[in-house]
Amino acid sequence: MMHRPKIAVTMGDPAGVGPELCLRMLADESLLKKCHPIIVGDYSALSTAARATEQTGTLESTPIVPLNKFLATDDFSQPTGIIVDCQMIKANQYRLGEINRETGHASWQYVNQAILLTQQNKTAAIATAPIHKEAWNAAEVKYPGHTELFADVTGTDDFCMMMYAPDFSCSLVTTHIGLAAVPGKLNTGIILRCIRLTADALAKIHRRQPLLTMLALNPHAGEGGLFGNREEERIIQPAVDAARQVGVEITDPLPPDTAFLPKWRQRTDGYICLYHDQGLIPFKAFNFDTGVNVTLGIPMVRTSVDHGTALDIAGKGLAQASSLIAAVRLAAYLTAQPRPLY
Amino acid sequence: MMHRPKIAVTMGDPAGVGPELCLRMLADESLLKKCHPIIVGDYSALSTAARATEQTGTLESTPIVPLNKFLATDDFSQPTGIIVDCQMIKANQYRLGEINRETGHASWQYVNQAILLTQQNKTAAIATAPIHKEAWNAAEVKYPGHTELFADVTGTDDFCMMMYAPDFSCSLVTTHIGLAAVPGKLNTGIILRCIRLTADALAKIHRRQPLLTMLALNPHAGEGGLFGNREEERIIQPAVDAARQVGVEITDPLPPDTAFLPKWRQRTDGYICLYHDQGLIPFKAFNFDTGVNVTLGIPMVRTSVDHGTALDIAGKGLAQASSLIAAVRLAAYLTAQPRPLY
Repeated sequence: MMHRPKIAVTMGDPAGVGPELCLRMLADESLLKKCHPIIVGDYSALSTAARATEQTGTLESTPIVPLNKFLATDDFSQPTGIIVDCQMIKANQYRLGEINRETGHASWQYVNQAILLTQQNKTAAIATAPIHKEAWNAAEVKYPGHTELFADVTGTDDFCMMMYAPDFSCSLVTTHIGLAAVPGKLNTGIILRCIRLTADALAKIHRRQPLLTMLALNPHAGEGGLFGNREEERIIQPAVDAARQVGVEITDPLPPDTAFLPKWRQRTDGYICLYHDQGLIPFKAFNFDTGVNVTLGIPMVRTSVDHGTALDIAGKGLAQASSLIAAVRLAAYLTAQPRPLY
Repeated sequence: MMHRPKIAVTMGDPAGVGPELCLRMLADESLLKKCHPIIVGDYSALSTAARATEQTGTLESTPIVPLNKFLATDDFSQPTGIIVDCQMIKANQYRLGEINRETGHASWQYVNQAILLTQQNKTAAIATAPIHKEAWNAAEVKYPGHTELFADVTGTDDFCMMMYAPDFSCSLVTTHIGLAAVPGKLNTGIILRCIRLTADALAKIHRRQPLLTMLALNPHAGEGGLFGNREEERIIQPAVDAARQVGVEITDPLPPDTAFLPKWRQRTDGYICLYHDQGLIPFKAFNFDTGVNVTLGIPMVRTSVDHGTALDIAGKGLAQASSLIAAVRLAAYLTAQPRPLY
């Protein structure tokens, strides 16, 4: 059997759809051929989800290893995944669909454990199932979300969020800031960094040099200064020029409204987007159930589902595992080739 | 035969694809059942385009009326369109694909004549084929485009641009300004005006009350002040509340990135978008060849194609008339019901 990278998959909030999606993912045989998923979560929560969504068969056929034994585990020859039982929460501490302090604490600990395992090379990458911001808040976790936790724990400020789907990806130069703050945040350095990280990631995924599309900030790319403050010429173009110097294939800043026309989408592997909605409006419109969130720039591979805990349907067997499966598969791809191309 | 509204169709720049598209439109029998297209242009230019694109049959079967005779014309019983010959340009003054001072002047005059005809109730609405900004500039026309000309001639400052397609429309609260200038331009009054004009136009088109989606300015609609300056609560929500007071069905300001997911697109008739690319990125991505530009708020109905003069393919018979046909059909719809619903 070919080498299958070990991917730590955090179970997410026990009250949400994370546990049932982990089980569905473990039943995906084509995924198991590509990688070895290591669920970092709670047996108890997976058991509750398995009964609620008729997946007890999957649970029974997957080896369960307590966290403190997993570090000594070295037999990964079975064609299944493994469940690492962190024993953070008991069945009577929460109900499906209702987050609380305990579910927040547990879901935070799964991520911490997955980071430790990856830092010790027991796992090669991390894919995260959804946590709930309010549950983390109730558990007094100081991070608003996964990305900030990863950045802090790994000591990285300069990360970049890429939404990936097979058709195209969108990387964001700025993310969760108000629209009015965007122009002031932009500089050539952060745009160039986002371009290089994206080019490197897409080269690993596609196993060839990607073609990137650089978006302009202003309507019609500013029409030579008619709209906006020549951000295209002053700030964006120098980043494009510098990226080309190191061999990246990237367009000049294009008018954003025509850059997503069908014939241009087909040519483009990835878009470099200057603000959250410039990228996520078209990305989600086209890739609403297959998108994967990748954190670029941190010293480990981390992917994430494109959706939340979906508390309203937790335990009902309605949640689709396509995004989690795509996240795990992508994490495996990204571990395949360790040296950057750019 | 049912009443067919008379729609003035300006021929656009003689050197561009406008003339050949007008001929294709005249050959569209299903359109001729809905309205009576009155081409406001030049016989000479249509003749050149007809020979270049093998449409002489259409030209021969359409009545030609000199401009100064058209005002006295009252027989519109024939099931064809009519060509109003303005005699603004001669065949030897330009070549297909090459704009100049004369093509700019002529295309400007077609618009002026169409406005006069409509102001005198000889035509009920106007649909415009593409002009070329540089040609207008060469002819010393003081307007950068159609919209500014219509606004000036009709004495209207407060117009609003709506991009319409059968699936959904996007109305723009702000249009051709830099992204950095957007937040400062927004106020409750202009948002409310855009909502009311859009609700009125879509009610005429769909013959029922439309459902509008209001977009937020900031990512995730600001998450209660976490991103941005509470523009959602301070500026946008009051416009939504005021619109509901007069009976408009509209959502609260929604996170822009999820508002275009498939299931939400299906429910929405029109989006109220705060800036150019917020609306035009998704609109053009989905409606790249069927979009119609409507100018709302001016005291006459005016629609326009969604594309430019396409000089590179003028006279080659490659240009698609779908957008012009959609523009003429929409103009006819919008004349159908004269009283505003809101």
